[in-house]
Amino acid sequence: MISVTVQIDREAAEPLRTQIASAYAGAIRDGRLSTGTVLPSVRALSGRLGVSPVTVAAAYRDLCATGLATALPRSGVRVTGVPVTPASERRGFELNRIEPDLRRHPVAECARLIGEVAQDPAAGGYAEYRGERALREAIAAFDRTLGIDVDPASSLLITSGAQQALSLLGRVWPVGTVVAVEDPCYPGARLAFAGAGATLVPLAVGEDGPDAEALKVLAEPGRVAAFYCCPTHANPTGRSWSEAARRRVLAAAQQGGAWLIEDDYLGDLEAPGQALPRLAALTGEYPGARVVRVRTFSKTLLPALRLAGVSAEPALIARLLALKVADDLGCSALLQRALAAFLSEGGYQRHLERVRPGYVAVRQCLSDAVARLAPAITFAGPFGGFCLLGRLAPGIDTTRFLGECARLGVQLTPGADYWADGLTGSDCFRMGFGALTPDEVATVVGLLERAVVQAVTPAAARSLL
Amino acid sequence: MISVTVQIDREAAEPLRTQIASAYAGAIRDGRLSTGTVLPSVRALSGRLGVSPVTVAAAYRDLCATGLATALPRSGVRVTGVPVTPASERRGFELNRIEPDLRRHPVAECARLIGEVAQDPAAGGYAEYRGERALREAIAAFDRTLGIDVDPASSLLITSGAQQALSLLGRVWPVGTVVAVEDPCYPGARLAFAGAGATLVPLAVGEDGPDAEALKVLAEPGRVAAFYCCPTHANPTGRSWSEAARRRVLAAAQQGGAWLIEDDYLGDLEAPGQALPRLAALTGEYPGARVVRVRTFSKTLLPALRLAGVSAEPALIARLLALKVADDLGCSALLQRALAAFLSEGGYQRHLERVRPGYVAVRQCLSDAVARLAPAITFAGPFGGFCLLGRLAPGIDTTRFLGECARLGVQLTPGADYWADGLTGSDCFRMGFGALTPDEVATVVGLLERAVVQAVTPAAARSLL
Repeated sequence: MISVTVQIDREAAEPLRTQIASAYAGAIRDGRLSTGTVLPSVRALSGRLGVSPVTVAAAYRDLCATGLATALPRSGVRVTGVPVTPASERRGFELNRIEPDLRRHPVAECARLIGEVAQDPAAGGYAEYRGERALREAIAAFDRTLGIDVDPASSLLITSGAQQALSLLGRVWPVGTVVAVEDPCYPGARLAFAGAGATLVPLAVGEDGPDAEALKVLAEPGRVAAFYCCPTHANPTGRSWSEAARRRVLAAAQQGGAWLIEDDYLGDLEAPGQALPRLAALTGEYPGARVVRVRTFSKTLLPALRLAGVSAEPALIARLLALKVADDLGCSALLQRALAAFLSEGGYQRHLERVRPGYVAVRQCLSDAVARLAPAITFAGPFGGFCLLGRLAPGIDTTRFLGECARLGVQLTPGADYWADGLTGSDCFRMGFGALTPDEVATVVGLLERAVVQAVTPAAARSLL
Repeated sequence: MISVTVQIDREAAEPLRTQIASAYAGAIRDGRLSTGTVLPSVRALSGRLGVSPVTVAAAYRDLCATGLATALPRSGVRVTGVPVTPASERRGFELNRIEPDLRRHPVAECARLIGEVAQDPAAGGYAEYRGERALREAIAAFDRTLGIDVDPASSLLITSGAQQALSLLGRVWPVGTVVAVEDPCYPGARLAFAGAGATLVPLAVGEDGPDAEALKVLAEPGRVAAFYCCPTHANPTGRSWSEAARRRVLAAAQQGGAWLIEDDYLGDLEAPGQALPRLAALTGEYPGARVVRVRTFSKTLLPALRLAGVSAEPALIARLLALKVADDLGCSALLQRALAAFLSEGGYQRHLERVRPGYVAVRQCLSDAVARLAPAITFAGPFGGFCLLGRLAPGIDTTRFLGECARLGVQLTPGADYWADGLTGSDCFRMGFGALTPDEVATVVGLLERAVVQAVTPAAARSLL
């Protein structure tokens, strides 16, 4: 076995566990440790480095979570090797998707948990329709840390991603029911509600939540049955509403009686100190205001789990459950049990803590890098979540710009897709950046710059470039 | 390491691989080999027994598929131990479910494959909405062995179980469309079509498929848009239509223009020599007849995969795909890639060959054992698939009988649930037996006998008992 030199710096801001994990990650990435190598036992390494076995074990867990190594029951930690398709070798940048950076998310660790739960053959069977009890309890426990009280027995349903929760919600109300959606809006939500026969009313959302006119509509008794919104890192802007804006919306809904459908698809990635209270956490202060909360693990953990949760009062959950049973007889027991174990063993919390700094760094790096695209492209800050909206200066043709980007290997989404009228935002594009590393940010911004040059009209070129 | 004596009998009907696998399975089950023990290497055991390494490797695969052992990359095959919740320790018999015997299905092997595909971080991301290409190709290749030609690019959609396929199909036609369903019928199908707003027409199905009146309805041009049926091992009877009956239905549909929705949820468990041709395989002989085929891995492999496939002409698949995207953005990439690997490496074929004899044995055993319940309870043969319908003699109260069974730990389903009028079959019950072993069959039949004694009226008792 090759020995890896781990430089321990007890004065560094970086925790010891991270120092140890990084040393091994580096050795694996640059080939000093080859695939199949078994790492020293926790006991041996802790003795050699003079740190506690708990710290070494935590470092190994972090290492395994990167996918570079795998912990095997009773046979130690083994080098898996560098993931086979690093993004740098991908053909392009699929920034038309909102996806986490899978290279930093624990797919191998989740797969290992699936292997463990599969030791019980019952894990291969059908799950309880409303979701495995252990998973519902683990989610409720997590949500209590956010100040959200959910009864896992009656008020929570596990769905196949947030999209299924929206699709089921669309069908809860009779055909023709008036459902308000934020504008701009995640198109999948419009699709779910309109597809179920709702009459959609777009409510304009500005820099800090719904505008005055939108609030008036919400406050009008009986005007809309429900309002779909995403107060934290909305799609497409990445912006979050202030707490004051959240309270304004709750007060309006309390008055008008609309259900608030809160899509909290990214909130877990916010550091606890910085996270704003969810609508579902404030609802107690607005008696009569009703919130349906949709939370998912697709962006914060892994899309392939296809696991999300919808929580609301029991009567609504019961109706969603009936629709869910007719739709697909419940989610995978294997995946649910693995996620339940990950949550209850603290793996999810650790994962979030581990990935948060990286996402903050990418956002900062992006914010700095795109500044040089002005005035041809401007971006409204603050950058948050996994996506942002860019606006092209007059004289740059959006279709041509998007086409040039695609030709250069950067897939973006036309901004008009997000507005109900299909016209507003036609000088904009949405860029998903969750899967980018800082290095890749620089590459992408360079490519956008090249695309601008191709898409600008000669007249505009004089003022812009 | 404890050595296991394997008696090789080259004259026996049982293949050598099965003899070897059985010897180890026996040693694990009765505790001679304890959890964690590493089995001899393929090379060592093949030398010791004088059989080819290929045979030993196959035996080890079979053993791993039972869940009693696990193959770990580069560290051999290790005893996992007896599954932690054998049915004998379960609180009861959930015969109200149609579920395979999970103790004989390869949940651990599938979990291992998930671990392997997870080495590529992209497996944690979103899958192609219509299903992973590798899985579609593997299913198409399998279906070609059944004489069914499916273009994996345009004519196949992966769904979350057969139920999702039915739910999507329900929504393909406008609200109010007339959809025929077989009668008796799987209630989940009625739920899917009625829930989507179809007007249901029950078509009576007898011992050999739809009756003459039903065929007349099917043959009437434009009378029904689609006919949901399950020609192979229908639920609740377990019966299959003859080839002649299949052809009668195809001819009627050809004349009337109805789509045939063929639910083939169990067909793969039929031995190739005994399987009747699917409607989808015969359709070429009936120009204009259109078949939508729904196939699933829930019963034949593992419910927890939540993976099924629906195949039809491209235009219909395109409509189903649009609904599927709005519903849940596709199935889990992790599960799909693992299943694709299982199929393309031949694991699924081997699994089917391995479990078929056991299911045949249970059916035979059940057929013998229930004979002693007559005349109080009669069962119409031939026993097939995973369920059967029992009829109670006059003088036995169905509700009381089902209640007594439940009290004794045997869950059954009321027969009336399967008929459209909710009345026919009220003297019947459905029994799912896929998860029973021969030992358990004897126990269950004994419990049914005890329930009859409690549920019989005094007058009837004189003639029945």
